[in-house]
Amino acid sequence: MIAPTLLAAALQAAAPLPSDPIEADWRPIPAEELMVITLAGDRQVIVRLAPRYAPEHVDNIRRLARARWWDGESVYRVQENWVAQWGDPTEKKPLPAGIVRVPAAEFDAPACDAAQRLKGPDPRAAITGYSADGWPLATDGKAAWLTHCYSMVGVARDKSPDTGTGAELFTPIGQSARRLDRNYTVVGRIVEGMSHLSALPRSGAEMGMYATAGERTPILSVRLASDLPEGDRPRFEYRATDNARFAAALRRREQPAEGMTGPGGLEICESLPPVRRAPAP
Amino acid sequence: MIAPTLLAAALQAAAPLPSDPIEADWRPIPAEELMVITLAGDRQVIVRLAPRYAPEHVDNIRRLARARWWDGESVYRVQENWVAQWGDPTEKKPLPAGIVRVPAAEFDAPACDAAQRLKGPDPRAAITGYSADGWPLATDGKAAWLTHCYSMVGVARDKSPDTGTGAELFTPIGQSARRLDRNYTVVGRIVEGMSHLSALPRSGAEMGMYATAGERTPILSVRLASDLPEGDRPRFEYRATDNARFAAALRRREQPAEGMTGPGGLEICESLPPVRRAPAP
Repeated sequence: MIAPTLLAAALQAAAPLPSDPIEADWRPIPAEELMVITLAGDRQVIVRLAPRYAPEHVDNIRRLARARWWDGESVYRVQENWVAQWGDPTEKKPLPAGIVRVPAAEFDAPACDAAQRLKGPDPRAAITGYSADGWPLATDGKAAWLTHCYSMVGVARDKSPDTGTGAELFTPIGQSARRLDRNYTVVGRIVEGMSHLSALPRSGAEMGMYATAGERTPILSVRLASDLPEGDRPRFEYRATDNARFAAALRRREQPAEGMTGPGGLEICESLPPVRRAPAP
Repeated sequence: MIAPTLLAAALQAAAPLPSDPIEADWRPIPAEELMVITLAGDRQVIVRLAPRYAPEHVDNIRRLARARWWDGESVYRVQENWVAQWGDPTEKKPLPAGIVRVPAAEFDAPACDAAQRLKGPDPRAAITGYSADGWPLATDGKAAWLTHCYSMVGVARDKSPDTGTGAELFTPIGQSARRLDRNYTVVGRIVEGMSHLSALPRSGAEMGMYATAGERTPILSVRLASDLPEGDRPRFEYRATDNARFAAALRRREQPAEGMTGPGGLEICESLPPVRRAPAP
């Protein structure tokens, strides 16, 4: 094992690779697209919302956050190799004014939105790739939709055509949940604090719903970053994909790593484009 | 939510589907292919070994278990969305007699071994499918190898061409680790108790190695089921795949579920063939 300080020094000394981002590749995520979930025990989970892909659901989610609807609710379902889910386990808490009760499915982004396409075939879509601002997409050549990768945030629902309001949300915590693609609405991605959900104790009860209230993880608050005082707002940046540097990173990732003999290739969920805390100004 | 007892009654009353296994489809897993890892806190993890695919590594692993080499060691690495790893964190503990120090890579099962092939393309292999006895495989048409799905067990190693002895083992705990395919040797699959590894606290230290010994999860013992007294042996069965019932289950799985509008398709790691505790005789 190399000591971390030595490793950092070595990285700083190395010349940049064609696949390294330049500073301009890091773009700010608007504060109204960041949602801060504070769990008991001072655990914070940060969600990047996807209003361009799921405008109506994200509008609902913003109303729920502003109404402090999730405060006092919980993570009530953690199913091994499937999902962690939060909201109101009774599904009976009245929703705030202005919520669209049965929003339409939101799966129809323009297919041309994939700025960087993956080389290899995909078992579920003609093409997969990333949008310019780093979202993982699949497309059949006509429409495009966000994929249910590990750490993406989806809207739980009952039966079709109910697509859920956004009050009950989940994230895949194991092998990807892509069998939900174009079937459940994806509204975001967890960009920090994923382990506060992925490492929660699993429930052996049906569908991973905790059998007792004591097993649940309390949600202290859910706020949009834009609703927090300026000094308390988390600031994040995504790595833009519509440039030669990201393309080089992707081609590298599709090759077997140095000294490795594997077949190469990449599945859309294996390696989501980087998001980072904005450096101090 | 339907109460579990009502649901069970409803399932019993329903006529069997063409995709339901018959009793003869359940085949016993030999006791010498089951390894019982007992962690502190009365947590058991059961591994099914794959001697047909990795004979030399599995031979090493059996020697290590018989020498009680892992007793008193630990799960010392848990990296978010990557792996949990166990063994000796110092890598200095002397190995028992008879261990092959640098076993050859074991990636070359006959390509014809995939009894059930998946329909869809795969980003990493010409063909993917399951062996008759339920192992997930990828093949380039010449050789076949086990895939690094969630819950599979791989052999940790340093640099190529060292392929590891089997003393340090890991399992993927997030999105699949298929970029290790045909590069690291796969020796088995966790068939019970996966959540005792997947829900462990993540380490934020380099490579997910716990920074302090106190964070590690102690391993009390590792035994082959065949070395336990007859009455203490866990008994497991796999679902055979080389029959029309499994084929029907697979085709069903590749379709969008009832009432669902998704694109269908299946990736080799999404849904490993079932393994169950043997019913009481």
